[in-house]
Amino acid sequence: MGIMVQKYGGTSVANPERIEAVADRVKRWHDQGHQVVVVLSAMSGETNRLIALAKAITDEPTPREMDVMLSTGEQVTIALLAMALIKRGIDARSYTGTQVAIRTDSAHTKARIEAIDDARIRADLDAGRVVVVAGFQGVDADGNITTLGRGGSDTTGVALAAALGADECQIYTDVDGVYTTDPRVVPQARRLTTVTFEEMLEMASQGSKVLQIRAVEFAGKYNVPLRVLSSFGEGEGTLITVDHAEDDMEKPVISGIAFNRDEAKLTVRGVPDTPGIASRILSPIGDANIEIDMILQNVSADGSTDFTFTVAHGDLKKAMAVLEKVAKDVSAREIVANGNIAKVSLVGVGMRSHAGVASKMFSVLAKENINIQMISTSEIKIAVVIDEKYLELAVRSLHSAFDLDAPAP
Amino acid sequence: MGIMVQKYGGTSVANPERIEAVADRVKRWHDQGHQVVVVLSAMSGETNRLIALAKAITDEPTPREMDVMLSTGEQVTIALLAMALIKRGIDARSYTGTQVAIRTDSAHTKARIEAIDDARIRADLDAGRVVVVAGFQGVDADGNITTLGRGGSDTTGVALAAALGADECQIYTDVDGVYTTDPRVVPQARRLTTVTFEEMLEMASQGSKVLQIRAVEFAGKYNVPLRVLSSFGEGEGTLITVDHAEDDMEKPVISGIAFNRDEAKLTVRGVPDTPGIASRILSPIGDANIEIDMILQNVSADGSTDFTFTVAHGDLKKAMAVLEKVAKDVSAREIVANGNIAKVSLVGVGMRSHAGVASKMFSVLAKENINIQMISTSEIKIAVVIDEKYLELAVRSLHSAFDLDAPAP
Repeated sequence: MGIMVQKYGGTSVANPERIEAVADRVKRWHDQGHQVVVVLSAMSGETNRLIALAKAITDEPTPREMDVMLSTGEQVTIALLAMALIKRGIDARSYTGTQVAIRTDSAHTKARIEAIDDARIRADLDAGRVVVVAGFQGVDADGNITTLGRGGSDTTGVALAAALGADECQIYTDVDGVYTTDPRVVPQARRLTTVTFEEMLEMASQGSKVLQIRAVEFAGKYNVPLRVLSSFGEGEGTLITVDHAEDDMEKPVISGIAFNRDEAKLTVRGVPDTPGIASRILSPIGDANIEIDMILQNVSADGSTDFTFTVAHGDLKKAMAVLEKVAKDVSAREIVANGNIAKVSLVGVGMRSHAGVASKMFSVLAKENINIQMISTSEIKIAVVIDEKYLELAVRSLHSAFDLDAPAP
Repeated sequence: MGIMVQKYGGTSVANPERIEAVADRVKRWHDQGHQVVVVLSAMSGETNRLIALAKAITDEPTPREMDVMLSTGEQVTIALLAMALIKRGIDARSYTGTQVAIRTDSAHTKARIEAIDDARIRADLDAGRVVVVAGFQGVDADGNITTLGRGGSDTTGVALAAALGADECQIYTDVDGVYTTDPRVVPQARRLTTVTFEEMLEMASQGSKVLQIRAVEFAGKYNVPLRVLSSFGEGEGTLITVDHAEDDMEKPVISGIAFNRDEAKLTVRGVPDTPGIASRILSPIGDANIEIDMILQNVSADGSTDFTFTVAHGDLKKAMAVLEKVAKDVSAREIVANGNIAKVSLVGVGMRSHAGVASKMFSVLAKENINIQMISTSEIKIAVVIDEKYLELAVRSLHSAFDLDAPAP
C-alpha cells in the first residue's frame, strides 16, 4: 500500500492493444490498494512522424514551436489510457505537463524541471483515482509548453515520484531489467537484482541505454527507489538503489560491463609540449558543439607531445575539419583519425575495495592478444579503447573472468 | 491597416505544402501592415484518425479525455504554421486554447466560449508578431481542456475577432464564397457579394454547409464582419453583414436557394383532434434525441386529424419505432413513413417587403408539375417539401424564375 509511479515507454503504448495491456497492469496495482500515478511517452514512431512534418517545412524549426508540436504525442496516449482505465471501472484522469503543472526553465527542447505542483494529483489519488500524466513535457513561468529532450519521460516519472514521496518509481520498458552486459553479445548475461545509482550512471554513460542519465541522477539526488522492468512480462526487474542490499554478503566486485561502438579516436601528433596546448586544441572542438569523451596525452622524447581524444562516430568528420585548422596554429606534425575503435568498461562499486581489478582486466585482454589503445578510470569504472573487431571477444572474456556469467541452466 | 482574424479549415492545412501556402497568404496581409491573428483547424483526416484510436479502445470514450486527445490536432498545425512564418522572417507565436486563454463552460466535446483573455494576443500584435491560435478548443475554469464540437474553429475565429474588435473575420475554406445555390446542381449559380447574417443562418439551417451556424450567430450577435473566401485562389469571397450594402439599389428579393435531401417524413393518421395531442406525439420523439424539422397538422372532416413532421433521414427507423408505441396510446389509425422527400427553401431578407414571393414559388413548381407536400415559412424564408426526384428540377426552375442565374459569359 503506497504511492507507485509507473512510467511506460513508447513501445509499451505503441497501439490501442498495448495501451489496453498497460491498463490491465495498472488495474492490478490499483486493485491491490496502491495509489498509482502513470507517466506515458508518445506512441513509438509518433515523435519521428511529427519531426518529419516540421522538417518538411523548415530545416531549422523554432524550438518553442517544436515543443508545442512534440508535446501532442503524449497528450494522445494519456487520454487513451485514461479511457481504457475508465472502461475497466477505474476512475482515471489525464493531465498534460501544463495542467499538473510540471514547471521547467525556458530551455525549449531540453528544459529542466524546476518544480512540480502536486496538489491536484494528491487530491485525485485521495479520491481513489488513477492519475495519468504526460511525460517529457512541462510548462515555463510564462505558460509556454516545454519538452525535456529525448527520453525525458523517465525524468518526469522520477521527478513526480520525488515530489509525491512515492514508494517506488517503476520504469516499464521492452527489456526486463538491467543486465551484466548486453545479452545479444553475451548470451550468459545475467539480470541484476540490484544496481547502485553510481553504477547505473557509469553504465548509462558508457553506452548501456536502459535509462536516461538525467533520470538516474535525479533519482539518486532525491533518493527515489527506481525499478526497471518489462511491460511485456512479469518479473521483479532491477532495483536501482543507493547501495547494494545489506544482506548481500558477497557484494560483487564488478556489476556489469558496458561497451560502446559509437566512438572514434583522433590523434594530433608532434605538438609542442607547452602549457595551454590542450585547451588550444580542445576549445575549438567544444565551440563546434562536439562532445569529447576520453582524453590522453603522451610526452615524446623530443619534447613534443601526442594528444589523443575520442568523439562520437557521427562527429568524426566535423572534428577533423576543426582540427585541420587548429593543427596549423599549434604547429602539429600530423592528425590521425581512427573510426574503427570500441570502448569497453568494467563498472562496479566493489572496485573501490578490491585492488587488482585493473591488472586482472589487462591480463585477460592480453591473453586474448587484444591491444589496449587508451585507458580511463574513475572510482567505480575502468574503460579501455580497443580495436572494434575485438569488441565481442573482449566483452565475453571479461564477463566470464569476472564471474558474471549466469549459472548453466 | 487593422486587425484581421483569418481562419483556415482542415483542407487548407492538410499537409506541409498547403501550410506553406497559408504562410504566404498570411505574409501578404502582414506585409500590407495589418495585424493578423490566424486560427487553424487540424489537418483534414486527423480528427477522424484520433477518433478511430479512441474507438479501438472503447465504444464510449470519456468526453473529458476525448477533448484532451482531439485538441492535439490543432496544436500540431499551429506550431507548423508558426515555423513556416518564422522561416519567412515574420515573428510568429502559436497558442493553444488553454494558453490564450479561451475560457469555456465544462460541457466537454460541445463547450461554449464564455470569455477570452486577449492581453497576450494584443501584446504580441503590438510587438509586430503574427499570432496563431488553435481553433476548436478552450479551457474550463478548472484548467480542463475542452472542445467546441465539429466546425468549432469557425466559432473560435469569430469569438477572437469579437474580443479583439477586429476589422474582419475571414473564413478561408475550399469554396470561394456563398453561392445563390449549390453550383453542382445549378451551373449558373452566382457567388453572392454580400449576404446578411439572417439569410446566412436560414441557408445554413436549410442545408447549405459553408459556415457553422453557431459561428454565424456569434458574428451576428457581436456584429463581426464575416467573410468567406477560398484558401486556394484569390477573390473577394462573400461578406456577411448586418444588412445588404446601402448602395445596392436593387436589393434582391431572394438571395439564395437552399435544399436538403437528408429528410424523411412521418405521418400519423386519424388521431383524435384533442388538445395536447401534438405534445403526446412529439415528446417521446424529443426524448429519444431525435430532432424534428417541419411540423404540419390537418383537421379531417370526421373530427380526427393527420399529424405530419420531418426528421433527419438517419433517424427515420428510430422515429418509427418510437411512433409505433405512441400510436396505440393516442389511438391513431396508421403511421406512414416517406424517406424519398427533399426540402427546397427560398431565402432572402427582401421577401419581407415583397408580397407574392410564395405564390410565385408555388406557380413555378406547379408549371413543372411538382406537387408540394408540406410548406413552412419564416420572415425571410419559404420552404417546401417535395418528392426527392424533382429536387434538381425544382431548384433550377426557381433559380431561373427568381433571376438568380449568372449572366451568360
